[in-house]
Amino acid sequence: MPTHDAGPITERVVVVGMGLIGGSIALAARATGAATTVVALDVSEAVMARVRELGLADVATGDMAEALRGAGLVILCVPVGASAAAAAALAPHLEPGTVLSDTGSVKSSVVTQVMPQLPAGVTFVPAHPIAGTEFSGPDAGLASLFQARWCILTPIDGTTPSAIALLDAFWSRLGARVAVMTPEHHDRVLALTSHLPHMIAYNIVGTATDFGDETQSEVIRFSASGFRDFTRIAASDPVMWRDIFLHNREAVLEMFERFSTDLSQLEGWIRDGDGDALLAFFTRTRAIRRSIVAQGQDTAMPDFGRRQPPAG
Amino acid sequence: MPTHDAGPITERVVVVGMGLIGGSIALAARATGAATTVVALDVSEAVMARVRELGLADVATGDMAEALRGAGLVILCVPVGASAAAAAALAPHLEPGTVLSDTGSVKSSVVTQVMPQLPAGVTFVPAHPIAGTEFSGPDAGLASLFQARWCILTPIDGTTPSAIALLDAFWSRLGARVAVMTPEHHDRVLALTSHLPHMIAYNIVGTATDFGDETQSEVIRFSASGFRDFTRIAASDPVMWRDIFLHNREAVLEMFERFSTDLSQLEGWIRDGDGDALLAFFTRTRAIRRSIVAQGQDTAMPDFGRRQPPAG
Repeated sequence: MPTHDAGPITERVVVVGMGLIGGSIALAARATGAATTVVALDVSEAVMARVRELGLADVATGDMAEALRGAGLVILCVPVGASAAAAAALAPHLEPGTVLSDTGSVKSSVVTQVMPQLPAGVTFVPAHPIAGTEFSGPDAGLASLFQARWCILTPIDGTTPSAIALLDAFWSRLGARVAVMTPEHHDRVLALTSHLPHMIAYNIVGTATDFGDETQSEVIRFSASGFRDFTRIAASDPVMWRDIFLHNREAVLEMFERFSTDLSQLEGWIRDGDGDALLAFFTRTRAIRRSIVAQGQDTAMPDFGRRQPPAG
Repeated sequence: MPTHDAGPITERVVVVGMGLIGGSIALAARATGAATTVVALDVSEAVMARVRELGLADVATGDMAEALRGAGLVILCVPVGASAAAAAALAPHLEPGTVLSDTGSVKSSVVTQVMPQLPAGVTFVPAHPIAGTEFSGPDAGLASLFQARWCILTPIDGTTPSAIALLDAFWSRLGARVAVMTPEHHDRVLALTSHLPHMIAYNIVGTATDFGDETQSEVIRFSASGFRDFTRIAASDPVMWRDIFLHNREAVLEMFERFSTDLSQLEGWIRDGDGDALLAFFTRTRAIRRSIVAQGQDTAMPDFGRRQPPAG
């Protein structure tokens, strides 16, 4: 964890939606002193009760007016499809000068949803921290979640330089590296690095579970042969992922077309028994992992450094 | 690691091919006292030199006659496509009473390759330990690799009960759980749990690297959003995987057909914006990971328990 060798980035940060990401932001903001007061806001009374039990925030309230009063930074941490409704609900209570941001995995749609709701004097900085786990809810929050991960800011017309600087400072304090690009570019890059991989992982897990119970039990038993790697991301939050596919459809389908064309070629090599083509292809794909490890975006430990389970 | 509270399973075990699997068997056999003498044999002089430097075995030799003299158990740890040649080279030196086994990821093809080479009095027990990492070569060996992992034995006509019992005892000593099935059944199950997932992982990494350098650098940078999970298995040994696809083609293509049909349906739901179908599907796939974790075949730690890299 970074130490807070500097003062708060903002007096009052309000985290709206206390799931994995919201909970992690609240924990990390408190741990790093990124804000004097960290406020948690969630529409679910059950979630708010859990947030209080876990002590994730300085203030935990379901009262929007109370939560947003004097807020320097408000961060939406809701499923992408709930962005318009969340912004509309907050809008009457947002004060001029407050900076609004979000954490959605799709940016163009969020911009389209949020902008019409934005009151005068409030600046919106769309953002996406590239971090997460396969767990959901406030109990899944981790103060270290954003450590060495990227956070992408996608400023739009009307985003002020000072608002960008605020988000840059905030995410840097939480341990993230900050990149800036357009919402459209973000959505194409993430379609390739995130949305297509999740689509494929969900699908292969679905194929395996389509078999009868006996085969399914063997699939589970022998999953260490490769399959288990896919089950992790296919265990991600279903509502979050439904919304991502609904709201980034064009970019996802574009990447899917490329993937399908490549897959037909690979299938052809297998069908034709073209060992030379297979060897060349498998050699080429090996290199990219080295780059990912070298850039600190994954562990160099064999097998992700998984702990060996106890013998049984 | 299991402790060796019992005597050796066999006096002399010979490991043929000192890569990740062979090296791990040698280390585990020594650590658990599974054999009085662990012999390493490899056709590569460079590999043998490294085996000696690392001290992976009691005896490290390139001389087949010397290695195989008095062997109770000989385990082929070579790429599937090299099985016939390896068995043919060993055959003149195999003594009656020796049990031959292997570790290939495909079983029917290995049976077809090895059986014609088998001298009288030598029993063959095809076997496949479901364990590995994305690293290759003798340096990648891990004594704990087989701990709590499954090892599948696929006996054939002529495999004696005492030979099966020997392999069962040997793999159990190394920490593995032992299952028995036919070679054909093994090849269909593994096509689903291992070969298809590797095919898909190799393909998605290939698709990402087809883009230009700028996009590729963004793919690496933002890989923590999902993509990096695929790069691990797509970094596996290219020769091993070429051989698997060449030698288990029919079963792989059968599983691929099912996967493709499912993928078209999923693509349709995305194209049509069918949120209900997506939500139901993503909810269903979430359950299987819980079973895998409950059965000790993966860690329950978020994100595979990956260590967070240092901030940079």
